[in-house]
Amino acid sequence: MAGKRPTISDIAREAGVSTGAVSYALNNRPGVSESTRRRILEIAERLGWAPSSVARSLTGGRANAVGLVVDRPARVLGVEPYFMQLISGIQDALADGPTALLLQVTDDSAAELTAYRRWWAEGRVDGVLLVDLRTEDPRLALVRELGMPAVVLGEPAAQDELPCVWTDDAAAIVEVLEYLVALGHRRIVRVAGPEEFVHTRTRSAAFTDAARRLGLEEARIVPADYSDEAAARVTRRVLTGGRAPTALVFDNDVMAISALGVAQELGIAVPEQLSLVAWDDSSLCELVRPALSAVRRPIAERGAAAVELLLEIVAGGAPRKVKTSDPELVPRSSTGPVTPR
Amino acid sequence: MAGKRPTISDIAREAGVSTGAVSYALNNRPGVSESTRRRILEIAERLGWAPSSVARSLTGGRANAVGLVVDRPARVLGVEPYFMQLISGIQDALADGPTALLLQVTDDSAAELTAYRRWWAEGRVDGVLLVDLRTEDPRLALVRELGMPAVVLGEPAAQDELPCVWTDDAAAIVEVLEYLVALGHRRIVRVAGPEEFVHTRTRSAAFTDAARRLGLEEARIVPADYSDEAAARVTRRVLTGGRAPTALVFDNDVMAISALGVAQELGIAVPEQLSLVAWDDSSLCELVRPALSAVRRPIAERGAAAVELLLEIVAGGAPRKVKTSDPELVPRSSTGPVTPR
Repeated sequence: MAGKRPTISDIAREAGVSTGAVSYALNNRPGVSESTRRRILEIAERLGWAPSSVARSLTGGRANAVGLVVDRPARVLGVEPYFMQLISGIQDALADGPTALLLQVTDDSAAELTAYRRWWAEGRVDGVLLVDLRTEDPRLALVRELGMPAVVLGEPAAQDELPCVWTDDAAAIVEVLEYLVALGHRRIVRVAGPEEFVHTRTRSAAFTDAARRLGLEEARIVPADYSDEAAARVTRRVLTGGRAPTALVFDNDVMAISALGVAQELGIAVPEQLSLVAWDDSSLCELVRPALSAVRRPIAERGAAAVELLLEIVAGGAPRKVKTSDPELVPRSSTGPVTPR
Repeated sequence: MAGKRPTISDIAREAGVSTGAVSYALNNRPGVSESTRRRILEIAERLGWAPSSVARSLTGGRANAVGLVVDRPARVLGVEPYFMQLISGIQDALADGPTALLLQVTDDSAAELTAYRRWWAEGRVDGVLLVDLRTEDPRLALVRELGMPAVVLGEPAAQDELPCVWTDDAAAIVEVLEYLVALGHRRIVRVAGPEEFVHTRTRSAAFTDAARRLGLEEARIVPADYSDEAAARVTRRVLTGGRAPTALVFDNDVMAISALGVAQELGIAVPEQLSLVAWDDSSLCELVRPALSAVRRPIAERGAAAVELLLEIVAGGAPRKVKTSDPELVPRSSTGPVTPR
């Protein structure tokens, strides 16, 4: 089953000329006689040749593709709805346009850099979306060095002049804490995502600030890594240690669901003895019992806005910083008034 | 922030020659004088030009990309781990090679066909992976018409001569039924995926055969669509109707988790009063309480094997049908001996 897509080599062979001559003829440039040009065009039409994005790209046109590297361990990736929702949003924005999405999944930061370099050197992408920005992120220097258009999905402070699409996570953290305090909670633990991510630090700073302002002396943050396994370990530890919290806030949905399992295992009733709040609401949060209260962020909107901004920049537009709609807390059955244990 | 990647237009401008002449020089073909060739090569080197996959593709080389269209509603896609696991497997196989993955998400079968046509016409892919094969699937005729290399992820019977990577689902269905019968279950309902999928029919035929062989007169299949919502509706109906089943088998993990929630809502104890088996084991199945017994299939292995087979065919290899390792039943806490309700 060999491919039948005609190339300019096929046309050249058929016409008995060089591929260069075919290229001249098809691009309507001088270098071949008028009769040869006509013959080449006839053969091209007969073979069903179409000017391809590949060909346009050779003469300085577009790759008509944007790149996304997702850098997460497969175990987390398989179960966390975030990336598929983001990709859905990206695809909505690309819709029936000529631009395709080039995707790479890796859990190796060096491989991620290599992917960007290769995509750019080979003319495969017009630009890239950068997710999960790290403090001291080498991708920022790389896209500058390459002059490759890039849009960051994340807070504007961290990546200076780069265009970005961001969501006001700090405001959502404050809303969650105020809600839990209104329910009577004072001992609140936030189980955080990877500390090297800029958005984790943004949320942590907002959490610490809000806790101080609300006088929550026992509010604290424990680090985890988005995985169900780490969340189960951390949750077991904080729930069985002294001065156990009455409310837990998680940086993703998978960790919150894992913690719900741990609470059931320990015989701790949710929400009577323990309130749980997930971050990045998803269908998963609605699937479990009790259904999880969660912070809903406009993930698909982020993806769509980011790819629209990227295409705008590729087309020569000025870098901008786009703010999505605000996250909102969706209260369900996993949060309730505090009751003494 | 404009791109700085040098094109042959840049080289042509710098050298004061046509792009055709640059193409001749870079491809070491006749058509330019030796001195011009040397000058062009010097300029190309100075500008950092590299022969790109795009350029190779013009002269009959490879696109160095494979395409995957995922055709599921965003709601299901966001929560079902299957596709991210499949994509992880594909990426493992592509690893550090030159081949990239082009991804499109759509829930529109016509848009899917358009994507394949466009990708092939524009020379963007060397071939495609076809998932979720339907009975009377228009993609089979399309890839034949285009002569586009394609590998089907699914059973060999359905797509005659096309190469495929398949898993013996029928054997796993038999294993599940025998296991449930050994636990004393006789009234077993399978909540199936979309009926238009070939793999759904394969499992249904195997279920019906095995049920007959095991003398399970009350075993039956009810259709659903992989979504948590449909699964909840169906589960509520079968559990509250007459002659309710003592065991439910689901065609994906999301539906099984949704059903667990419904059982809890109805006060039906799992596994004391109702056993649940999920299909396509995932971390989700381990996250909930009780953890779900599930059929584990080698999803990442499927993805890797499929892309390896596709690259083999693109390179001129003969079509083959590759069988993955067999699925296995992973018993957890959601299945147990039948007890009268």
